[in-house]
Amino acid sequence: MQAEIITIGDEILIGQTIDTNSAWMGERLNEVGVDVCQVRSIRDLPNAIVDSLDTIHPDTKLVLITGGLGPTKDDLTKHTLNEYFGGELVYHPEVFEHITALFAKRGRTPNEMNRGQAELPSACTPLHNPNGTASGMRFERDGVYYVSMPGVPYEMKGIMEGEVMPWLVDTFTLPPLVHRTLLTHNVPESELASTLEEWENNLPTHIKLAYLPSAGAVKLRLTARKGDPEKNLNRMIQLFEEAKPLIGDAVYGEGAESMEEVVGQLLKQTHKTVAVAESCTGGSLGATLTSIPGSSAYFMGGVMTYSNESKVRMLGVNEADIMVHGAVSEPVVAQMARAVAKKFNTDYGVSTSGVAGPDGGTEEKPVGTVWIGVHGPAGTNTYKYTFGHNRSRNIKRSVLMGLDLLRKQVLADEKQTVE
Amino acid sequence: MQAEIITIGDEILIGQTIDTNSAWMGERLNEVGVDVCQVRSIRDLPNAIVDSLDTIHPDTKLVLITGGLGPTKDDLTKHTLNEYFGGELVYHPEVFEHITALFAKRGRTPNEMNRGQAELPSACTPLHNPNGTASGMRFERDGVYYVSMPGVPYEMKGIMEGEVMPWLVDTFTLPPLVHRTLLTHNVPESELASTLEEWENNLPTHIKLAYLPSAGAVKLRLTARKGDPEKNLNRMIQLFEEAKPLIGDAVYGEGAESMEEVVGQLLKQTHKTVAVAESCTGGSLGATLTSIPGSSAYFMGGVMTYSNESKVRMLGVNEADIMVHGAVSEPVVAQMARAVAKKFNTDYGVSTSGVAGPDGGTEEKPVGTVWIGVHGPAGTNTYKYTFGHNRSRNIKRSVLMGLDLLRKQVLADEKQTVE
Repeated sequence: MQAEIITIGDEILIGQTIDTNSAWMGERLNEVGVDVCQVRSIRDLPNAIVDSLDTIHPDTKLVLITGGLGPTKDDLTKHTLNEYFGGELVYHPEVFEHITALFAKRGRTPNEMNRGQAELPSACTPLHNPNGTASGMRFERDGVYYVSMPGVPYEMKGIMEGEVMPWLVDTFTLPPLVHRTLLTHNVPESELASTLEEWENNLPTHIKLAYLPSAGAVKLRLTARKGDPEKNLNRMIQLFEEAKPLIGDAVYGEGAESMEEVVGQLLKQTHKTVAVAESCTGGSLGATLTSIPGSSAYFMGGVMTYSNESKVRMLGVNEADIMVHGAVSEPVVAQMARAVAKKFNTDYGVSTSGVAGPDGGTEEKPVGTVWIGVHGPAGTNTYKYTFGHNRSRNIKRSVLMGLDLLRKQVLADEKQTVE
Repeated sequence: MQAEIITIGDEILIGQTIDTNSAWMGERLNEVGVDVCQVRSIRDLPNAIVDSLDTIHPDTKLVLITGGLGPTKDDLTKHTLNEYFGGELVYHPEVFEHITALFAKRGRTPNEMNRGQAELPSACTPLHNPNGTASGMRFERDGVYYVSMPGVPYEMKGIMEGEVMPWLVDTFTLPPLVHRTLLTHNVPESELASTLEEWENNLPTHIKLAYLPSAGAVKLRLTARKGDPEKNLNRMIQLFEEAKPLIGDAVYGEGAESMEEVVGQLLKQTHKTVAVAESCTGGSLGATLTSIPGSSAYFMGGVMTYSNESKVRMLGVNEADIMVHGAVSEPVVAQMARAVAKKFNTDYGVSTSGVAGPDGGTEEKPVGTVWIGVHGPAGTNTYKYTFGHNRSRNIKRSVLMGLDLLRKQVLADEKQTVE
């Protein structure tokens, strides 16, 4: 089954908003065997909306539309769809009750504009929005289904999970597409491809390989659109088992996992705990670790020592070392990692200190210089990296590297213990 | 001048990658008067690429294409464009020199695949990629320009800034579109719209208003596409000056500013400093503050006290208070905010403690319950919120709320001082 996504809103076209909805919807649709062939973002003008509906691909059977359903005057989607599919606006008392209940929770009362949100096109099936005041709507014409939802991600997701996904699964029999992803860190795309050349040449023709590079990492994705899903999945698992030894310890996980999930799982399994001492990453390492539900089982906390004074005061870093070697130096990150593990009584301590940029670089320590320390039962290791010029990218790469170094250290310590 | 963006790659359609490039490009183009009318994400198949090029809008004069330019076999854009525009692949020694230099920096040498990246279509003008091995390409046909760039954001941005933007500004005379944005926090969209109803009704017809809601915040955007840019801008500034007193202190800034920039500017101007004590936000508050270059002028650091033990040990929170009131409670955040300001010797301390979810809620303190403390020269204030069920959204809202409470406290203290 082929689908398209249309997101309505000038905010995406002028760059005020990043379209995170489409990726989320694409992923959910894929899981149940719906293949998204195109995503379009268009202006919030009735003409542009009508135009986009008139130009869907002939094989498309499902169109998901987001945006333009708010209570305010610039939200035109409902009226445009009402005209496009023919009919009139009908007041739904149960929708207004839901709106009133939502407002009551926040100690407020709905106004006239919110009352207008309870009026929906007669041609649509209303879709309940548990997280907001704008109902979703489903239309059908000539065997093609059109679903309209608000653009606020949290509201769109509520309608997708509560209404659209169950309806899709109940109404259609869909053979799922099969994807499998291998996650690697710190090896360039071309080097990976060269390492895997022979393996890649021997891939079955119905399984497609893609390389997906991002800051510091490359994902390898296998996709099968034809054939038996279970057989395809088993074949892919086997193929990745063949690829792993070729790539070595740069492989950190599989599937939709993130580095922080992999590290979290590992710490949980080994019953180990960690604390972080962050200078250049300013809290990002902790934020990344705690983005995972249940992280309190292994993350005890940490210290953001952004100033030199706080490195001395909070972690007892030797002031003379900061004077002689600078805050961005081996002895400083080593002391930070050790001290934070001790303070928080954890098995591991991870520390960062670097020049994130854009200013603050010197000839000896240019912007992008980052020291990372990992302290564990077997001692303290330190690593120096030279990333790039971009502040947010340097922070991101430092976090990913810190987590990967921790992962490798925990694995090595486990191996040691077993031996 | 009208433009379109085409992003190539199954990873966007299956939801493995979020398209952040289009928003960035849309924003940069807007600044120089180029109006993006459509963004499309398509499959990485030659047919889909050709199809998208054949269906650009008749008024479009510029097409920006990203993706599919890597060194690996799944990257088909270059070959497809070469066939589409006619010609042959030509080896560019200066491009290969650049590739070799990039690899040398990382202590590696390019392989055959990278050498292939120095072969470019004869119909194109090569565009230098300072941050990667895949050259950009510019084609022209019938007065329409086509620019192809890699999909890695960092590389795309390097080509845009170094090649595309200067060429656009040099080659075309473009009247800039004018946008102006007013930023509000913690007032629902419909309530804002109702407050501003009369103001909105009196807007000049050539100035368009849009409401852009996101987690906890609503942006009001005015846009003028016609008329004298300077006059339009002045009119918009005046209009927002009229709107501000109607909205009150929910307005936290204007323009493209983020809450963290506004707070950073305010702390800089008032020569104040801050430290943070984070429980449920786990580092996000620090990470958000330090995402701003130069934040070391006012952010001294902080403590992530994820465990109860660390709240006692690192910040001296009264253990009995945790026992009696729980970690998510008024006395605990009050003590955390006070202690962290003292430990880091700062003017202000901001603390968070809450149930981020998805688990850990109780009847008395359901998921989404968050206490925030702000300690300053005038004393310590505490606030309780009940957000929703979504972990990442609860963390985001807590961070935004913490920053906004800090902003209001600093402003109030300043007013006090002046009086």
